[in-house]
Amino acid sequence: MADPRFFDRAGPFTLESLAALSGARLLNPQGSARIFRDVGPLQSAGPEDVSFLENRKYLETFVRSRAGAVFVDEKVAGHAPPGMALLVSADPYRAYALVAQAFYPARPIIPGCAPSAVIDPTAIVPEDCDVGPNVVIEQGARLGRRCRVEANTVIAAGVEVGDDCRIGPNVTLSHCVIGSRVVLHPGVRIGQEGFGFAPDPSGPVKVPQLGRVLIGDDVDIGANTTIDRGSGPDTVIGPGSMIDNLVQIGHNVILGRCCILAGQVGISGSTRLDDFVMVGGQGGLAGHLHIGSGVRIAAKSGIMRDIPAGETVCGSPAVPLTEFMRQTAVLQRLARKKDK
Amino acid sequence: MADPRFFDRAGPFTLESLAALSGARLLNPQGSARIFRDVGPLQSAGPEDVSFLENRKYLETFVRSRAGAVFVDEKVAGHAPPGMALLVSADPYRAYALVAQAFYPARPIIPGCAPSAVIDPTAIVPEDCDVGPNVVIEQGARLGRRCRVEANTVIAAGVEVGDDCRIGPNVTLSHCVIGSRVVLHPGVRIGQEGFGFAPDPSGPVKVPQLGRVLIGDDVDIGANTTIDRGSGPDTVIGPGSMIDNLVQIGHNVILGRCCILAGQVGISGSTRLDDFVMVGGQGGLAGHLHIGSGVRIAAKSGIMRDIPAGETVCGSPAVPLTEFMRQTAVLQRLARKKDK
Amino acid sequence: MADPRFFDRAGPFTLESLAALSGARLLNPQGSARIFRDVGPLQSAGPEDVSFLENRKYLETFVRSRAGAVFVDEKVAGHAPPGMALLVSADPYRAYALVAQAFYPARPIIPGCAPSAVIDPTAIVPEDCDVGPNVVIEQGARLGRRCRVEANTVIAAGVEVGDDCRIGPNVTLSHCVIGSRVVLHPGVRIGQEGFGFAPDPSGPVKVPQLGRVLIGDDVDIGANTTIDRGSGPDTVIGPGSMIDNLVQIGHNVILGRCCILAGQVGISGSTRLDDFVMVGGQGGLAGHLHIGSGVRIAAKSGIMRDIPAGETVCGSPAVPLTEFMRQTAVLQRLARKKDK
Repeated sequence: MADPRFFDRAGPFTLESLAALSGARLLNPQGSARIFRDVGPLQSAGPEDVSFLENRKYLETFVRSRAGAVFVDEKVAGHAPPGMALLVSADPYRAYALVAQAFYPARPIIPGCAPSAVIDPTAIVPEDCDVGPNVVIEQGARLGRRCRVEANTVIAAGVEVGDDCRIGPNVTLSHCVIGSRVVLHPGVRIGQEGFGFAPDPSGPVKVPQLGRVLIGDDVDIGANTTIDRGSGPDTVIGPGSMIDNLVQIGHNVILGRCCILAGQVGISGSTRLDDFVMVGGQGGLAGHLHIGSGVRIAAKSGIMRDIPAGETVCGSPAVPLTEFMRQTAVLQRLARKKDK
Repeated sequence: MADPRFFDRAGPFTLESLAALSGARLLNPQGSARIFRDVGPLQSAGPEDVSFLENRKYLETFVRSRAGAVFVDEKVAGHAPPGMALLVSADPYRAYALVAQAFYPARPIIPGCAPSAVIDPTAIVPEDCDVGPNVVIEQGARLGRRCRVEANTVIAAGVEVGDDCRIGPNVTLSHCVIGSRVVLHPGVRIGQEGFGFAPDPSGPVKVPQLGRVLIGDDVDIGANTTIDRGSGPDTVIGPGSMIDNLVQIGHNVILGRCCILAGQVGISGSTRLDDFVMVGGQGGLAGHLHIGSGVRIAAKSGIMRDIPAGETVCGSPAVPLTEFMRQTAVLQRLARKKDK
Repeated sequence: MADPRFFDRAGPFTLESLAALSGARLLNPQGSARIFRDVGPLQSAGPEDVSFLENRKYLETFVRSRAGAVFVDEKVAGHAPPGMALLVSADPYRAYALVAQAFYPARPIIPGCAPSAVIDPTAIVPEDCDVGPNVVIEQGARLGRRCRVEANTVIAAGVEVGDDCRIGPNVTLSHCVIGSRVVLHPGVRIGQEGFGFAPDPSGPVKVPQLGRVLIGDDVDIGANTTIDRGSGPDTVIGPGSMIDNLVQIGHNVILGRCCILAGQVGISGSTRLDDFVMVGGQGGLAGHLHIGSGVRIAAKSGIMRDIPAGETVCGSPAVPLTEFMRQTAVLQRLARKKDK
């Protein structure tokens, strides 16, 4: 079970109610009244715990698991050990997520501002917000309803934050407008000047960065990620986008809806990603590009050109995945031939 | 126009004064008394706004732009829509930068220390500095004239900062001497111990890191960038260098004048870059190398050897750009041949 | 010598005592009573300073050095200039490290909590700890003996820290248990939610992240590095591991003993590294992999598959080093041939 020093658990729930919560189908309805007290990974879950099998790599762990109930794809149901209740779902991980949210609901907001918080009298902080120690909120900034702002975070002048946001500790916000239900992890930097200057033999001349950062609803931004404000146009992060840790997003970048950027991705200035684009870890995109809807960019790829919607690319410079695999194979073959 | 919640605008200016400010030439001197109130990007600028065309990719936007005046290279002047005033410059982006600085001058310093700042009595903070809430300045540290230090930043013992520096929020400085007119964006870390230890089967033995970080005048350092102090020699960042977000600079690295490091670049210990070196995003340099003056390193390149002055390199391991393009082409050709 | 604004020096020491401290052998015992006052790099060390030669690249600097004594491998002893005392060691860098630690011992703890620190009454902070200004320690957190916590750091509810830890400024800890003698550099983020969600056309569904981060004894973690907590299992960093700046470690990652991760490395979720694994700068590892003991991964490599113990790999996708070199050579040859 989750360490009680860090997590508060709700429940218990009957198997039937777990099926209802998650939209999964109980394969054998006989055990519907069984009581479940927790979620857990396959290797350590016990008879009163719910788990899931998503990655086939863990099929053997599943076969040996003592979990009382498991969310699975119907195809693997035949491999289940006896006594295990099966919750069948086309998307077992999503179904598990909903049940785990029920067992471990978000920590409630306890309204109030810490005495050490420094809040400008012109800032607007609704009474139902929770503002931690040493938080600084400057003139004219405004928070929405039921926001949590954790210790030592700085919200600069004029920043606007929507409802139900969770802003972690040591975060810095300026020149931005943030939607509702946004989660910012520790050390996030949003709204600082972009990397804009005109090179010159006598030293670079800085170009004032006059845009903002606009963050849509339901966005999640990872620890120590940096998002620069626009140079004139705005930098825009579309609703539902998930951004991992240590990601760099340059000025004027536009992300569509539900984009996913894994850790250490970098996107150069003025590049536009349409909806549902996925970029693997350490992927890098040059500036002024257009990446179509649903494009998948493999980890470590380097993108130097526009990519049409729906394509999957890999490598640096990136090419379609099948071509990348052929390139890798031909190079391996040639190197081995030379060896003989 | 720039969002007035975040930006204060100066002006208006006549077209003639904009030409004078920027060193550009008015192509048609008739309109020299026209009044301009703002700068803006080509796609949204109106008749009283000044814009610029730098990247030919945006030529069509230029042709359709409603901007009242635009900084351009003389070659594209013929494409301008009727009624648009043209400010001709060999470097339109630089000229635009100077005018944008006039419309949006740096936010003035309002001298004073926030009551919540914790400043050691032996630290020197001139009266014309602006020190934000919860800033910590330790013993013996000293700021120059007219510095701004934003909220929750920590300046450790002995650190010396020149005049007219802007230090963002949540920054950490130790073991460093910083020039004048330096800009440090949020979350910058300067002067922590370098990655120095002697591997040993019983566990690594740490090597005390006894050098400093020396930052020249007019340097700009991006959000969450980290610069370790020297191990004995110093780590040195030459004047006028521009460093983007999330860059890692190891101990004893030396950067010459006006180097440009894009986002997520990493430079390993004891590598030396001469003047005017440019490194593209996510470029990585091994340790103990010497990179000559004016070298250009493409994004995502991996540098394993010294590079003579003036060369442009690409790839990992990096080779001269023309060779990289030949390698890419030959590999593509072989992969496609195999396909048939 | 080290800048006295930043460093306090101990000593002097006789040559004999330096040999004893470091386990090195004095090549010529005659000078054993000579007095040494400092350590320094070969190029600037003087007659009363001790230096070292580790990298053969610096042999010429050694030959011209004025250092009074130098730690060397026996093989280079013949190249020493006259008058230089030689301290012979199989591992000169390690020997130097021990002597440098004697000259520059760690800054002593001065017990006490700054008045501006915000410490929950239920937190446990032993009297011999040194807690800096604006530090926040939340309910139920506990520090071990003789810990230093620097300014503006946040230690969230329930976190447990061992003895003799040094936690730098602007650090954020939550959901973690930390061993003894651990060093955390500025801006480190430990314990935030991992990147866990189930993609869905209506927007991603977040999966509660219910594990912790467990950090072993003697671990060193670089500036602005991020380590996410486990999703159910824990994220584990083995004892003696050294992690450089701006490294990203995903949820459920397990590092064995004495692993070394250079700057900007990224490790995706659920990947396991056995003991003594080394990863070069900007290396990236996909998720759910197993990397055997003693594996060496070259800088910038991309790891997509398990790697057996002891192997050295390079490239993206990574292959054994010898194969990588053959691939590089064959590609260069083909590109040049095409050129003619």
